[in-house]
Amino acid sequence: MTDISRRNWLKTAAVSSTLMAGGITAASAKAVDPMPSKWDETFDVVVIGSGFAGLAAAIEARLAGASVCVLEKMRTIGGNSIINGGIMGVPGSPMQKREGLEDSPELMAEDMFREGGGLNHREKVLHMCKQALPTWEWTVKELGVEWVQERVAQEGGHSVPRCAITKNGSGSGIVLKEVEKLKSLGVVPRTRVFMEKIIRDADGRVKGVQVREGYKFPDAKSGKVKFIAAKRAVVLAHGGFGADVKFRSIQDPKLTEKLGTTCQPGATSEAWRESARIGCHMIQTDWIQCAPWTAPSEKGMGIALFFAQGAAAMFGVWVEDKNGTRFVDELANRKVRADAIMNLLNQGVHCYAVADAKGVEPMGVSRPGLLEKMLERKCVRRYDTLEALAAGEKINLEGLKKSIAEWNDAVKTGHDKHYNRYVNKKAVPMGTGPWYVSTMVPKVHHCMGGIYTDMHAHALDIVNDEPIPGLYAAGEASGGVHGAVRLGSCAVTDCIVYGRIAGQNAAKETPWS
Amino acid sequence: MTDISRRNWLKTAAVSSTLMAGGITAASAKAVDPMPSKWDETFDVVVIGSGFAGLAAAIEARLAGASVCVLEKMRTIGGNSIINGGIMGVPGSPMQKREGLEDSPELMAEDMFREGGGLNHREKVLHMCKQALPTWEWTVKELGVEWVQERVAQEGGHSVPRCAITKNGSGSGIVLKEVEKLKSLGVVPRTRVFMEKIIRDADGRVKGVQVREGYKFPDAKSGKVKFIAAKRAVVLAHGGFGADVKFRSIQDPKLTEKLGTTCQPGATSEAWRESARIGCHMIQTDWIQCAPWTAPSEKGMGIALFFAQGAAAMFGVWVEDKNGTRFVDELANRKVRADAIMNLLNQGVHCYAVADAKGVEPMGVSRPGLLEKMLERKCVRRYDTLEALAAGEKINLEGLKKSIAEWNDAVKTGHDKHYNRYVNKKAVPMGTGPWYVSTMVPKVHHCMGGIYTDMHAHALDIVNDEPIPGLYAAGEASGGVHGAVRLGSCAVTDCIVYGRIAGQNAAKETPWS
Repeated sequence: MTDISRRNWLKTAAVSSTLMAGGITAASAKAVDPMPSKWDETFDVVVIGSGFAGLAAAIEARLAGASVCVLEKMRTIGGNSIINGGIMGVPGSPMQKREGLEDSPELMAEDMFREGGGLNHREKVLHMCKQALPTWEWTVKELGVEWVQERVAQEGGHSVPRCAITKNGSGSGIVLKEVEKLKSLGVVPRTRVFMEKIIRDADGRVKGVQVREGYKFPDAKSGKVKFIAAKRAVVLAHGGFGADVKFRSIQDPKLTEKLGTTCQPGATSEAWRESARIGCHMIQTDWIQCAPWTAPSEKGMGIALFFAQGAAAMFGVWVEDKNGTRFVDELANRKVRADAIMNLLNQGVHCYAVADAKGVEPMGVSRPGLLEKMLERKCVRRYDTLEALAAGEKINLEGLKKSIAEWNDAVKTGHDKHYNRYVNKKAVPMGTGPWYVSTMVPKVHHCMGGIYTDMHAHALDIVNDEPIPGLYAAGEASGGVHGAVRLGSCAVTDCIVYGRIAGQNAAKETPWS
Repeated sequence: MTDISRRNWLKTAAVSSTLMAGGITAASAKAVDPMPSKWDETFDVVVIGSGFAGLAAAIEARLAGASVCVLEKMRTIGGNSIINGGIMGVPGSPMQKREGLEDSPELMAEDMFREGGGLNHREKVLHMCKQALPTWEWTVKELGVEWVQERVAQEGGHSVPRCAITKNGSGSGIVLKEVEKLKSLGVVPRTRVFMEKIIRDADGRVKGVQVREGYKFPDAKSGKVKFIAAKRAVVLAHGGFGADVKFRSIQDPKLTEKLGTTCQPGATSEAWRESARIGCHMIQTDWIQCAPWTAPSEKGMGIALFFAQGAAAMFGVWVEDKNGTRFVDELANRKVRADAIMNLLNQGVHCYAVADAKGVEPMGVSRPGLLEKMLERKCVRRYDTLEALAAGEKINLEGLKKSIAEWNDAVKTGHDKHYNRYVNKKAVPMGTGPWYVSTMVPKVHHCMGGIYTDMHAHALDIVNDEPIPGLYAAGEASGGVHGAVRLGSCAVTDCIVYGRIAGQNAAKETPWS
């Protein structure tokens, strides 16, 4: 239908009088942004965003011979990628082999489907998992990324340890190498350049972007307006909107200003709104991953989570302050637990992780010195008695006592009547002071949804699910790979695999004239 | 930003040369559909869809003195509403009072929030619940809808019985009265008129629609193209897309062609795609409610569900055929159970509800004659022995025996080790023939997401969340009220409450010239 309309438009566009004659042709033509009278700059490929995906796309496009520019709205490059934990899901890596770990792309995909609750686009997931190893090898050979060789990490939801770890323990270990490579190819990412508009012409093709050069986040009117033409394609790799309270709470009203975020401040919705405005098919925008056990006093993920998870969730209780009662299976999946805490928080009820001296012992063994560090940072507090803890944290004491009695009963009988929580064999009844507590306020972490793309990373049109000519998307800006729950280490794989595919295909587009 | 752009556009539009001069003004102007040179017809308010919401909007707009037309793409009016169960959530109804039932709008809203998992837009839910009673009274006084006076129904998730029941036990009891009222006001809904495009002008205002008169569903090219101007506003009340396999499985890949639907065939995505294309902010489109226990051999909801739920889920087991094992808590909420069945179904594994002679007894008491009717329809099958049942239905016998043993153990101990399923006090160990079984294939039922609207039923713009001038939305076409799980009887309330609001406000818009 749209194609026909476009043809009609093209037929008539030549003779503008025909256009004014109106009738079906004109009125059914594609919505259109007026073209600028002149372009300030012209490139084959224009990449929006300087994270894992955008940089990978730029490198591949450049290697294919295209002229490329990378635009980053913030003062520094790397977006959330550069503050990311730097682990990448790679089935069949040399590190796994050395540890004698059996793994396969199919097994990794199954893990992602299971945790994704069937919301994942299966073909995309499978292709990503199959490309994971060659892509990891590419980061070594092509970029010189340094990976820990001795071991692999295991994140929640993965059925085997398969997460490759950067030597510097951060996403910067990948991002900085991508930037180096790009520089060696003559491309330096530009910072403080905000993409204000995607310019889609009457023929339906995206032909460039309107930007603000010298932009000062978050001032939408700052910087100088410029028009940059993309003769072959624009690649959208602008990441998620976890830091955008207004937009995220429209998609999921639980995600109010009461929550924190692990994202950098620039993780906002402008590019999401703009890609929807020009006709991208947006999917699963309301699936936004939150970390359940983070402490409000800490930046990013912090360390209090190791107490809430490793001590309280396994050997203690999670309670709310109003009635001192347990409110969720302390070992349910992250989404269930984060949702439960957020719903209480939005009703003015606060959630705490509580463990006693026995409960923190295993953590002391596995992570020596960490508890002391937590107490120092005050993200975990110590009290001599339960009464002092309840008073100090303003938790309903009677309810708290009942909750502990309930858990102790579960430890004795091996069955938690209330939430059917798994009872750890090492668990002993609570009651040995001193007592420890941390406040839990979920932090918005990752957007699973985004632009609907095909296997070639084409951005698809909401009108007919066909590729929008001249437009690609990859990474957190795109949707459908992770489904309901993204597994740790899968974002890096997704970003680099589909970022490269987007760049390779963008460079192959026939230039418009 | 957009407002500024619009002003810029208006400034320049007058002098078209300025437009061609390009620069920021032109390129940042709103995307625009060319206006038709002439409109074939003109009304104050054009309503898309002839269900509960569209008809309520049309009535209110007409009562406010506006000229109105109602466009329905199918051959018959009423959409899903006319085949709906005809129950309406109304807190504080005379029927509740007669039964001495305590209820309040706040309690109904709390029920919706709890089941909605915090995805509901709270202010909208509260307003809907407060308007429920006056709206129900309006259906009696203004429309003459006949309601059962002796009792109210209770649907899952409602903490008290609060569902008013139409005397004819169907949504048609409301729809036909709405149509009568509308006719008395001189408006006859037009059938086989398909809205092909929403026409949004350069100033950002929606000014009318492009339709195909004499449209033959689903032929997109059938019928004669016409342009209908809406001088005050267009009201989108086109319903959901549950019958659109392609679109629904993009939003939620679980919802493949393997599933059935309770929706009429016209529940497709064209209007969803079109409203997104012209800039509506779409939310929670991937939240699509499915009935878990429907039988593939039956149309719509059917009756087999009363066996799967009332007999097997309470006193029997739900098993899959491949291994004969239980696959979910038979009493988990509808979404959890439907998701579990769909994920298996999409792997080629089929799910069955099984009960023995003792298990069907309570149903025989509460619904005499129903079991016989089920057997007659073959949506429930009877076998003398478990072996015969396994053979007849191709279910793994050994696994089935283990599953029954597991449940019988739960009945004895009062605790279901596997799924912590609630053990009914009346339950007795299974083992008394004959045996009964039904096949369970979920059916796609209702779209919770849709166009993001404000309290006045304005459709909001993805660019800035401001109302799109001249555009309203209500009913299943709009999103945010029901959140993750819509409660039975709340759709009717939502449709009529916000349909009326949309019609009242549409009639108040200042006509464009």
